[in-house]
Amino acid sequence: MKVFVLGGDGFCGWPTALHLSDLGHDVTIVDNLSRRKIDVDLEVESLTPIAPIGERLKVWKELTGNEINFVHLDLAEEYDRLEVLFREQRPDAVVHFGEQRAAPYSMRDSSTKRYTVDNNVRATHNVLVAIATTGLDIAMVHLGTMGVYGYGWSGTAPIPEGYLTVKVPTPDGEIDREILHPANPGSVYHMTKTLDQLLFAFYSSNDQVRITDLHQGIVWGTQTSQTALDERLINRFDYDGDYGTVLNRFLMQAAIGHPLTVHGTGGQTRAFIHIRDTVRCVQIALENPPTRGDKPQVFNQVTEVYRVRELAELISKLTGAEIANLPNPRREAVENELNVSREKFLALGLDPTKLSEGLLEEARDIALRYKDRADTTKIIARSVWRQGMETSPDLMKS
Amino acid sequence: MKVFVLGGDGFCGWPTALHLSDLGHDVTIVDNLSRRKIDVDLEVESLTPIAPIGERLKVWKELTGNEINFVHLDLAEEYDRLEVLFREQRPDAVVHFGEQRAAPYSMRDSSTKRYTVDNNVRATHNVLVAIATTGLDIAMVHLGTMGVYGYGWSGTAPIPEGYLTVKVPTPDGEIDREILHPANPGSVYHMTKTLDQLLFAFYSSNDQVRITDLHQGIVWGTQTSQTALDERLINRFDYDGDYGTVLNRFLMQAAIGHPLTVHGTGGQTRAFIHIRDTVRCVQIALENPPTRGDKPQVFNQVTEVYRVRELAELISKLTGAEIANLPNPRREAVENELNVSREKFLALGLDPTKLSEGLLEEARDIALRYKDRADTTKIIARSVWRQGMETSPDLMKS
Repeated sequence: MKVFVLGGDGFCGWPTALHLSDLGHDVTIVDNLSRRKIDVDLEVESLTPIAPIGERLKVWKELTGNEINFVHLDLAEEYDRLEVLFREQRPDAVVHFGEQRAAPYSMRDSSTKRYTVDNNVRATHNVLVAIATTGLDIAMVHLGTMGVYGYGWSGTAPIPEGYLTVKVPTPDGEIDREILHPANPGSVYHMTKTLDQLLFAFYSSNDQVRITDLHQGIVWGTQTSQTALDERLINRFDYDGDYGTVLNRFLMQAAIGHPLTVHGTGGQTRAFIHIRDTVRCVQIALENPPTRGDKPQVFNQVTEVYRVRELAELISKLTGAEIANLPNPRREAVENELNVSREKFLALGLDPTKLSEGLLEEARDIALRYKDRADTTKIIARSVWRQGMETSPDLMKS
Repeated sequence: MKVFVLGGDGFCGWPTALHLSDLGHDVTIVDNLSRRKIDVDLEVESLTPIAPIGERLKVWKELTGNEINFVHLDLAEEYDRLEVLFREQRPDAVVHFGEQRAAPYSMRDSSTKRYTVDNNVRATHNVLVAIATTGLDIAMVHLGTMGVYGYGWSGTAPIPEGYLTVKVPTPDGEIDREILHPANPGSVYHMTKTLDQLLFAFYSSNDQVRITDLHQGIVWGTQTSQTALDERLINRFDYDGDYGTVLNRFLMQAAIGHPLTVHGTGGQTRAFIHIRDTVRCVQIALENPPTRGDKPQVFNQVTEVYRVRELAELISKLTGAEIANLPNPRREAVENELNVSREKFLALGLDPTKLSEGLLEEARDIALRYKDRADTTKIIARSVWRQGMETSPDLMKS
């Protein structure tokens, strides 16, 4: 299969590109390297050392014989080149990771709010327009987020995979209607994924674009079997207050002797998935596209559910790290329950990596190994959801 | 009240600006004159002769003594200037018409699809970010569309004003949940208004921005008592296949002896409102903003409901014009029922202009008076919802 991986230089995109290439697919990465450039602006780096994209691809070819193409292209700004690329290359599928993906970054200031909306909405819309305009039957797999659903809306019912059937009152009695789960995003970033859902609904209805939307939980872990082949293929590990995800941050904090930064009570319950399962889920989604004319297909890409404080306690027990309860810069429920439907991927053969299996490897091979690269001034989350919200001072001097 | 009218040079914005100025409000029009420029590109003009904005404002001041300010600014592209304008001028309210508003134009080609999304989403988001960032308590009134609801979704129940309460099944029994009416847009233009709704929900929740969203029907009519004061204040009358709205098109077609262009069976039932009621509704919305912290307030801005073929028959009877049933370039139901809740504006004192009252005036004072300005090659709708859909040849030689 000829597959374009949009945003294929990023944290989820890069291991996905290698995984698909390893399976024998003809892979092209389309990326503007924005994730690296945002690091430049934030004056921070991945804990793991990231090779330039050219070197990454050269090493991959040397080690495996598989060639991955790279096109430097801005999806939001260079529509015409994207359309030409589709016409010339005629991919069978695109996997779309080409969006700004950090909630705290999306809430930093007016500029990052605007960038997140402008980039994400335009990138997604441009891809859809290019598919519709060329008339090519390119299946699209998009990385969404569990954050589109919000938390607790459905009472005790599990969060469905995209759609739910509700009863609507009418003068003639109730009728059943299937609706897209109502949107309840907690940040500008999450909001863009709810906008994407409406774009998908329209283009699948008007132009029969075949779309799979993957509502992913919080990713943890760093390596897949492909990225672990050589240090020059290593995946990103973000630990900073904007891009670091909670579990990876805890592991790194434990490694350098920094208290584990729990915001509020840590009663927030969230869904998690290992990066190894992310790449498998994308593969499964590519192998099981919807039929032309179907509505967008939604999978919840989630394997386990934990409270943030449970994770902190687990890692504290493992490593002896202290736990610090810091002010919560987000506007969110202090505590919530979470119950997520995740039957579809299990039915299609996903065999999840459990936290209990991957955690020690992650602590040893990544956090401890690269801890000297950490900049401790970048750990505390400084983005606040509204002006005047409290944040913590640095807890450790570098 | 100090009011900014964003898009105040357009078809709804201009009469609204005059109406609010006439009421004694301190009005500033913010517009990039894009509506006039799109006419340049489409090689078409308003049937009525539109004076330059500077002349419009000079005449208004001469006749009434009221000064309306004008700021030439692109909401999507010039965020920084917008934020400075808010900080310096500290408006009490903004009325936001600054979006590309024609469904056929939004479906013409990849470029107009992209322009519609890029312009509309960014304009709306920039206004919200500017309100949130400045921390000013600026109430926002936004022109939405009935098209966000789609048609027939709620069975025989009237389309509610924004929200409806549904029953959600849970393991413990059903629970009631209020949801935003599910989106079912029929064009890229309508889709942008469904995206706006999600932007509003987020910024009203996260930043307590006070927002009123007006889901307007199809506007007909041209003049308000203010625009009728002097020909140099006259409002737009669009008749072309992209920007012309159905009733105005029929009136103009009748005036020049062109068959009335009914797409499909004309069984499409749509909601209508006279431009005179549009400006009153905006006034009422400004006078009745939501409380800070409330969810976005939604009004259906609609006064009457007709089938397209009923309108054609009405005008045919009035004028003797023939009716032509042309191919429908849209993907929509051939026939639909429509039942719309519209209690809120009536409860707040709106006294609607009925079709039976305004139609003859419109035919006489606008369509017949300016018929020699018509370009008959611009009448047939050429935008199609999918490639290959049929359109009609020109029915009349110029």
